[in-house]
Amino acid sequence: MDKIKIAVLGLGNVGQGVVTMLDTQKGRLAANAGCEIELGRVLEKYLTRKRDVQLPEGICTNRWEDILHDPSIRIVVETIGGIEPARTYILQALQAGKNVVTANNDLLAEYGYELYQAAREAGRDLYFENSVGGAIPVIGALRQNLSACRLTQIMGIINGTSNHILTGMEMGSDFQKALAGAQELGITEPDPLADVEGHDAARSLAIIATLAFHSQVDFSDVYAEGIGKITKEDIEFARKLGYRIKPLAICRNENGAVEARVHPALIPSAHPLSAVKDTYYAIFIRGDELGESMFYGLGAGRWPSAVGVVDDVVAVARNIVNDCQGWLNTLENRGLPILPMSEIHTRYYLRLLLADEPGALASVTEILGRLRVSLARVHQSISDKGAAEVVFITHEAVEGDMQEAVSLIRELAVTKKILSLIRVEGD
Amino acid sequence: MDKIKIAVLGLGNVGQGVVTMLDTQKGRLAANAGCEIELGRVLEKYLTRKRDVQLPEGICTNRWEDILHDPSIRIVVETIGGIEPARTYILQALQAGKNVVTANNDLLAEYGYELYQAAREAGRDLYFENSVGGAIPVIGALRQNLSACRLTQIMGIINGTSNHILTGMEMGSDFQKALAGAQELGITEPDPLADVEGHDAARSLAIIATLAFHSQVDFSDVYAEGIGKITKEDIEFARKLGYRIKPLAICRNENGAVEARVHPALIPSAHPLSAVKDTYYAIFIRGDELGESMFYGLGAGRWPSAVGVVDDVVAVARNIVNDCQGWLNTLENRGLPILPMSEIHTRYYLRLLLADEPGALASVTEILGRLRVSLARVHQSISDKGAAEVVFITHEAVEGDMQEAVSLIRELAVTKKILSLIRVEGD
Repeated sequence: MDKIKIAVLGLGNVGQGVVTMLDTQKGRLAANAGCEIELGRVLEKYLTRKRDVQLPEGICTNRWEDILHDPSIRIVVETIGGIEPARTYILQALQAGKNVVTANNDLLAEYGYELYQAAREAGRDLYFENSVGGAIPVIGALRQNLSACRLTQIMGIINGTSNHILTGMEMGSDFQKALAGAQELGITEPDPLADVEGHDAARSLAIIATLAFHSQVDFSDVYAEGIGKITKEDIEFARKLGYRIKPLAICRNENGAVEARVHPALIPSAHPLSAVKDTYYAIFIRGDELGESMFYGLGAGRWPSAVGVVDDVVAVARNIVNDCQGWLNTLENRGLPILPMSEIHTRYYLRLLLADEPGALASVTEILGRLRVSLARVHQSISDKGAAEVVFITHEAVEGDMQEAVSLIRELAVTKKILSLIRVEGD
Repeated sequence: MDKIKIAVLGLGNVGQGVVTMLDTQKGRLAANAGCEIELGRVLEKYLTRKRDVQLPEGICTNRWEDILHDPSIRIVVETIGGIEPARTYILQALQAGKNVVTANNDLLAEYGYELYQAAREAGRDLYFENSVGGAIPVIGALRQNLSACRLTQIMGIINGTSNHILTGMEMGSDFQKALAGAQELGITEPDPLADVEGHDAARSLAIIATLAFHSQVDFSDVYAEGIGKITKEDIEFARKLGYRIKPLAICRNENGAVEARVHPALIPSAHPLSAVKDTYYAIFIRGDELGESMFYGLGAGRWPSAVGVVDDVVAVARNIVNDCQGWLNTLENRGLPILPMSEIHTRYYLRLLLADEPGALASVTEILGRLRVSLARVHQSISDKGAAEVVFITHEAVEGDMQEAVSLIRELAVTKKILSLIRVEGD
């Protein structure tokens, strides 16, 4: 049986998972790939750092040249993360005729097209399943399978930390405690703000949207709003109204423009997405004749991430054995415009504290009506402090109109406080 | 741009959908495949039969030789269904160096290995996404992506007709009316018994299990029990106990033997599977490091089925363009034994009518205890006719023991009637 040598760059959480699986699953991987897969080299900056995995003598190096200039290494697995030196390593590896597997959504969301182009020119594979939710083969499906229909919308939960925090808050925990729990589970990004501010999900969404709509969507094109302002009161109100609050990522391709945004949202409790908890991801794909397809599974953590990377290593090894490296590199870029956030349409949940006096509600609804925001539901109750707590659920409205309405409402004398504005999706 | 000619065999529901999509999605398919895809020939037994689709003059033929001996036809799409002549056509097409896309689960569930072997020897592609749930790329995932972990269990809902019927009964409809509704939707097999008796699901499960466990599982190895005995009373009882009744397909690979069965089951209402309604399919895949992944989407009907077939046509065309036909044909057959149904472990819901007298319940529970069936829940109420209606939910027990216990209980003088025995899964 042929033997294919690979190198793993970076021995962080995912890198160690990959190295372990390559050893413990040796037989299965060989049977699936049609060749033995041998770990030839590991690139690690700090050769003496303590880590969980045992590696044979001489495998580790801190010199990239040892890998780049070794023609026997056919696949480079990049699990360093971040932009540099990962980007340079990947470009050089492709130019040197090596195939690349990466888990790096930071890099792909900003330099995706440059790397896809380089892989195409080199006639080599660039695989990146784990850039969006480890063990759920959605990247594979978008690249290899879902070709027949026009895809119109992709909506999902693609950040384990944010979802874990909101699930914890539903069960009575508070934000800080739930965040600490996520860190203990090993699912957070090195910078936890990247998770809770929505940046990690925005990067994954840029990668998904690019593949789904055959048009370049970068990290900077994605509107990102984090979960930091969600309160237990909102979670409880949402529950009473028949919704749950989830960290949502949505992209759409309608009327020739691409919309891409990440923010918390109220999802109806009956919607399958609302049942997705903790570190599970779910991605709903809608297409013209497709109806709705959903992919669901463990997205974050060492093992699901390692699984996504190792699945890719097997796929690339199989390509090498069958002499079809680089076959998946058809890459159209339609250059569709990105819809400004102010032009998107959605529904809103708005919670305010008003003075408890005649005409207070009327002044608010007058503004909403004037800005073309019509109401689906209104709940008012008198709070402890003698103010009126009002919750609105609107019908679909334009974001720019809604934001302007909220600004005007804020200026009213009767408005004590705008408590929350959260988008409503999935109805 | 290259042009690849294909032939479609059979112009039934799915065949017509395929022919339509090849025309309406021409541009997209070409962009995804890297070549134009041209419909060269259609094989149709009844050339003058009325159908929805318009076809150019001269495309239709009722002679297989017109296709088999035409070297310009590179891909044959088989949407005839059934065993013969589909099997012969596919074998001859592969031997003649053509690639094959099929949607035929009847054939694959009984002759799968013969066809996989033939494709391998010919060095040609055999793709069959739509043999299990049209537009959900689960076959693709099992063949191409999910290589890294040992898969241990696959559980799902993979028959639209049965699911549609049970969903309808939940909402107050009756069996016959719901079946008629399914036929109107165009989702039923030609023989509706194949749906409601579980045969269609059993065929799909045989195909899935074979791929997942790298071991031959045929239709005849799968235990199949239909939904015909499910009553509105059971659905209502299940609901009160926190369950929904779904037509389930499960296969497992544990302790070196393969278990494969299709039957209705009580699923906890909180389980994502219980929210899967109507003609939607869902397939849960569990693997060692994978946790649980789920694929969900429209499985049945003309358009989802056509989508699955056309996705495969694009994938095969791409393989031809990149000169890697037949690359996906690594096929291990571990020859694992099939676990007899009597040896499977699961939980049970048992509903009986007992005489309303002292010791009646005790004689039943004595038998259950003696056969090593322990009880999780018991509900008893007095029915209109002065009998006691008793519902048990058991802990995990061995099928053979449970069936024997039910036989013994049936013989008791106090037993008026065994009303239902339904397995409980997903707890």
